[in-house]
Amino acid sequence: MHSIGVDIGGTKIAAGVVDEEGRIVASTRRVTPATDQDLIQSAVVDAVHELREDHEVAAVGIGAAGFVGADRRTIVFAANLAWRDAAIADEVEGRIDLPVVVENDANAAGWAEFRFGAAQDASDMLMLTVGTGLGGALVLDGRLVRGSGGFAGEVAHMNLVPEGQWCGCGRRGCLEQYTSGTALVRAARARAVSSEPLYAPLLERAGGDASAIDGPMVTHAAQEGDEGALALLAELGHWLGYGAASLSAVLDPEIFVVGGGVSSAGDLLLDPARTAYASELVARGHRPLARFAVARTGNGAGMIGAADLARQDA
Amino acid sequence: MHSIGVDIGGTKIAAGVVDEEGRIVASTRRVTPATDQDLIQSAVVDAVHELREDHEVAAVGIGAAGFVGADRRTIVFAANLAWRDAAIADEVEGRIDLPVVVENDANAAGWAEFRFGAAQDASDMLMLTVGTGLGGALVLDGRLVRGSGGFAGEVAHMNLVPEGQWCGCGRRGCLEQYTSGTALVRAARARAVSSEPLYAPLLERAGGDASAIDGPMVTHAAQEGDEGALALLAELGHWLGYGAASLSAVLDPEIFVVGGGVSSAGDLLLDPARTAYASELVARGHRPLARFAVARTGNGAGMIGAADLARQDA
Amino acid sequence: MHSIGVDIGGTKIAAGVVDEEGRIVASTRRVTPATDQDLIQSAVVDAVHELREDHEVAAVGIGAAGFVGADRRTIVFAANLAWRDAAIADEVEGRIDLPVVVENDANAAGWAEFRFGAAQDASDMLMLTVGTGLGGALVLDGRLVRGSGGFAGEVAHMNLVPEGQWCGCGRRGCLEQYTSGTALVRAARARAVSSEPLYAPLLERAGGDASAIDGPMVTHAAQEGDEGALALLAELGHWLGYGAASLSAVLDPEIFVVGGGVSSAGDLLLDPARTAYASELVARGHRPLARFAVARTGNGAGMIGAADLARQDA
Amino acid sequence: MHSIGVDIGGTKIAAGVVDEEGRIVASTRRVTPATDQDLIQSAVVDAVHELREDHEVAAVGIGAAGFVGADRRTIVFAANLAWRDAAIADEVEGRIDLPVVVENDANAAGWAEFRFGAAQDASDMLMLTVGTGLGGALVLDGRLVRGSGGFAGEVAHMNLVPEGQWCGCGRRGCLEQYTSGTALVRAARARAVSSEPLYAPLLERAGGDASAIDGPMVTHAAQEGDEGALALLAELGHWLGYGAASLSAVLDPEIFVVGGGVSSAGDLLLDPARTAYASELVARGHRPLARFAVARTGNGAGMIGAADLARQDA
Repeated sequence: MHSIGVDIGGTKIAAGVVDEEGRIVASTRRVTPATDQDLIQSAVVDAVHELREDHEVAAVGIGAAGFVGADRRTIVFAANLAWRDAAIADEVEGRIDLPVVVENDANAAGWAEFRFGAAQDASDMLMLTVGTGLGGALVLDGRLVRGSGGFAGEVAHMNLVPEGQWCGCGRRGCLEQYTSGTALVRAARARAVSSEPLYAPLLERAGGDASAIDGPMVTHAAQEGDEGALALLAELGHWLGYGAASLSAVLDPEIFVVGGGVSSAGDLLLDPARTAYASELVARGHRPLARFAVARTGNGAGMIGAADLARQDA
Repeated sequence: MHSIGVDIGGTKIAAGVVDEEGRIVASTRRVTPATDQDLIQSAVVDAVHELREDHEVAAVGIGAAGFVGADRRTIVFAANLAWRDAAIADEVEGRIDLPVVVENDANAAGWAEFRFGAAQDASDMLMLTVGTGLGGALVLDGRLVRGSGGFAGEVAHMNLVPEGQWCGCGRRGCLEQYTSGTALVRAARARAVSSEPLYAPLLERAGGDASAIDGPMVTHAAQEGDEGALALLAELGHWLGYGAASLSAVLDPEIFVVGGGVSSAGDLLLDPARTAYASELVARGHRPLARFAVARTGNGAGMIGAADLARQDA
Repeated sequence: MHSIGVDIGGTKIAAGVVDEEGRIVASTRRVTPATDQDLIQSAVVDAVHELREDHEVAAVGIGAAGFVGADRRTIVFAANLAWRDAAIADEVEGRIDLPVVVENDANAAGWAEFRFGAAQDASDMLMLTVGTGLGGALVLDGRLVRGSGGFAGEVAHMNLVPEGQWCGCGRRGCLEQYTSGTALVRAARARAVSSEPLYAPLLERAGGDASAIDGPMVTHAAQEGDEGALALLAELGHWLGYGAASLSAVLDPEIFVVGGGVSSAGDLLLDPARTAYASELVARGHRPLARFAVARTGNGAGMIGAADLARQDA
Repeated sequence: MHSIGVDIGGTKIAAGVVDEEGRIVASTRRVTPATDQDLIQSAVVDAVHELREDHEVAAVGIGAAGFVGADRRTIVFAANLAWRDAAIADEVEGRIDLPVVVENDANAAGWAEFRFGAAQDASDMLMLTVGTGLGGALVLDGRLVRGSGGFAGEVAHMNLVPEGQWCGCGRRGCLEQYTSGTALVRAARARAVSSEPLYAPLLERAGGDASAIDGPMVTHAAQEGDEGALALLAELGHWLGYGAASLSAVLDPEIFVVGGGVSSAGDLLLDPARTAYASELVARGHRPLARFAVARTGNGAGMIGAADLARQDA
């Protein structure tokens, strides 16, 4: 049976009919109407109605950034949507007569990778999404880990460096401050103004204006062999692998799936991660090393995962 | 139905008949015969035979320090027993005609707390055993987490401080080097020789010989109000709570159960842990704070947990 | 004999006639004409001419932010004035027929404290100026330490935390990122948004807008007993004392003079510094502890020190 | 005029007549008589008498490990000699009728390098002695820096890593724990047991017994191209350069002279130090980079420096 996945993003709402193989067979989108809960819900309902005109579906899964309650019906806190305790599943269910579940968007994307993507042969997987920030999703023994309150998977805020870089969360040294697109750009700009010859070509590429450096510029430069850009990606990858080693000590996954915009750097990011991981993994030599793979399900991952998770319970 | 739990320790083997409420209804013990696998297995078989004379049991669970294979039949690596790939479940099963499973001892003890101890009302629990070293066990959504290779729960080797204290595992800055009995004693001895007036009474208590300071001495001194000893336990508790905050970011448990010898300090250890945890937890204010509780099942925890895990599968 | 001290700041140029006891007997000021070297020099010459109408002087000392050459005649690099290799002493000397020397402004202020302020009885002094940034000046065995290239005293950029907070200098973990007005405000704002109850009153004081918190607000709140503000100053003081302990290991001064805007917090800053210093000082118990004192010569310190240094060589 | 230098070491006392060019023209030695102050002083007196039989000298300089008072007459604290407030200059002077001064042995060796060795063309020099521990000596503007109490130059106990490796001084993260022969050996042994393939050849070289690895073994392996040994020296050199960058921020020397046993690795140690130094130096691009050079005066450095310092004041 097909199901619908909805991905509520900061600028657009994407909805799609997803089959049991994780294929999107139809889709539509709406502009996200600011942060007004009612308007967003109406847009979701409207998109679902449109998709149901041509497709029979069993359930609707909604993915959104933020903390989702353990009952999978409520968005407890969403920084970018300004929502608090939004009972979105009840509201939407009442208007479409289909079972609805809510999932954290990183969890939904991770589930898509686990079911249909890079981790489809694994039973224990961690997904690390290196985008502007750092997202995480955990599947252990074939089950998505949500935690007692629905807050599990926030790998971004593992402590990496006591007394390290301040994080937007109000604490210091979070992993996200060392492994994210934001961290990459900040490091690139800082290095560019430091008079180290290694970073002079990158500064030149930015027309001499360090503040013009962005993530794609670093990745492209690295792909063209720029030594400074390669060093920046290697540093990011180092911390990614270093953090992954801590996660392996605790959770012992088979595979780390790396997604998000920065993962487009591929092995320029993943090879340094693998090296740091191997060096920092406890009891290496007595255990297999987890694999590192780039995510495969692409931009639709949130939709696909949300739809699949909804179908399972319908 | 009753089952037998066996706890293979470095100096003794403890075995007991455990009922469905986690009570030990009979027990026996043997001296651990060095690190010889055959002799240890014979001692286990012998103890099981003795217990079965008066009790009908359905299964045998064996707990041991070390990495246990995901199939729960093999000890892949045990530092203190010098075992590698020891197929202990097969060997013992062949001689007693009962189903046998092997578990990591920290996992077994954690399971006992989850089923019959401080976490019996929880569905998501992390156990941290602060003994000579630091042990860990994870129960998520009611299930013991073993990981893809059986190596999950090694919280001791999460990275805490890049470039921090060297660990016996060959890497730097592991949590265990900051939160364990060994860490407590090392800190106490170092402070005692540093001429800080705060630690002078502790040094005096040790007869002026810093190397005579041990863990119980610090705990007793703290219980009697010694400011230096209290500061040492507070520092240990700080890192315990700090590490717990990272674990909560990833796993979102309801409760941390703290066991091991150092947990006898009770709130002198746990209050600083709670403070650091609350300060370092991401999104606090939007989520409940996990509880910290001292373990309750005592020295028999390993036996009880191993027995219960064996019964479940029998 | 009297001499003239000139302090070239980002917004104004202050010049004064200073007697041999460090008293300013006459003064004048000019608006700093942007970052144009010629205009600034003309303003300096003009101010000197005005002061000489009524006072006989032997020499002119010019203090400015930036790296001053070891010959004390050239500003090698000044970030806020956009100067590179500015031969300011030659230029000004050619127009006023008096000997001119240039000094780093922090060095000049430190010298004023050494000769006429909090360190006048000491022979080995370190000054730490905790303003927006962190400045430093060293007097060892009665002599101002300038270094081989004139760059000594940059305590701001000692490494404090490997992998710590990024610094404007393009490197990570500089002391200035932990001990400066900027660090204080950044910490205050981060804590204010973290939902820690301790910092709620400070957020309320800022009208609920964390970005409205500034340094004086924190200091005033602390002086009124606000626990969060006290904790913030204590943390700043901790790192000040911690950094001072490293400096004492290397230089063994008798006194640390603490100046700059944040020093108006007095013992609320200095007591935590003293505690951390005593705890972190090597071989304490076998040596005296250096004193910590607030600077006394006030806003005119740069002028007074520059004048006195110029007189010495005239 | 010639003078005598005496170097009191833990196992032997070396004494020599040194000419004005820093050449040892005659020498003798005594076994160090345990830690008995009187016996040691008698041995010093005896050695001086022997040397004076054939040489006319103006003064005697005594170098010893430990904290030497600012008056250069007293050893305030010497860990390995168990001395406290030993008035050694007075005692010896009373028996030989020559002016006597006492110097810290690292200061004496540093002075020898400044006057006759690798830094003889410099006016601002820092010496870093990487032996079992880490020693330091500072010469600024041609003068040996002793500090207000005679304790300057203890670079070993600058803080490098907050919460880092415990140090014998009772505090954490001292530079010495990262840059010394002890640090090298500790890292080598830890890496050797960590199952990282990189370090397998080094473990093999030690016959499979990690505890058999010592400093010379690492250096020899590196000189023969062993990648693991090279990595270990590179890590040590990294921290040496990193610490040197902090020292340059504060003191701006022209040259770092690196001595001690580990300096026999030459550029295998110094090149990584230069790289880290260049990367971590504030305002690089606006200032010259200090040179790094291996010490030249050899084992007699302590004698030569003590003799020269004594002659200067005689």
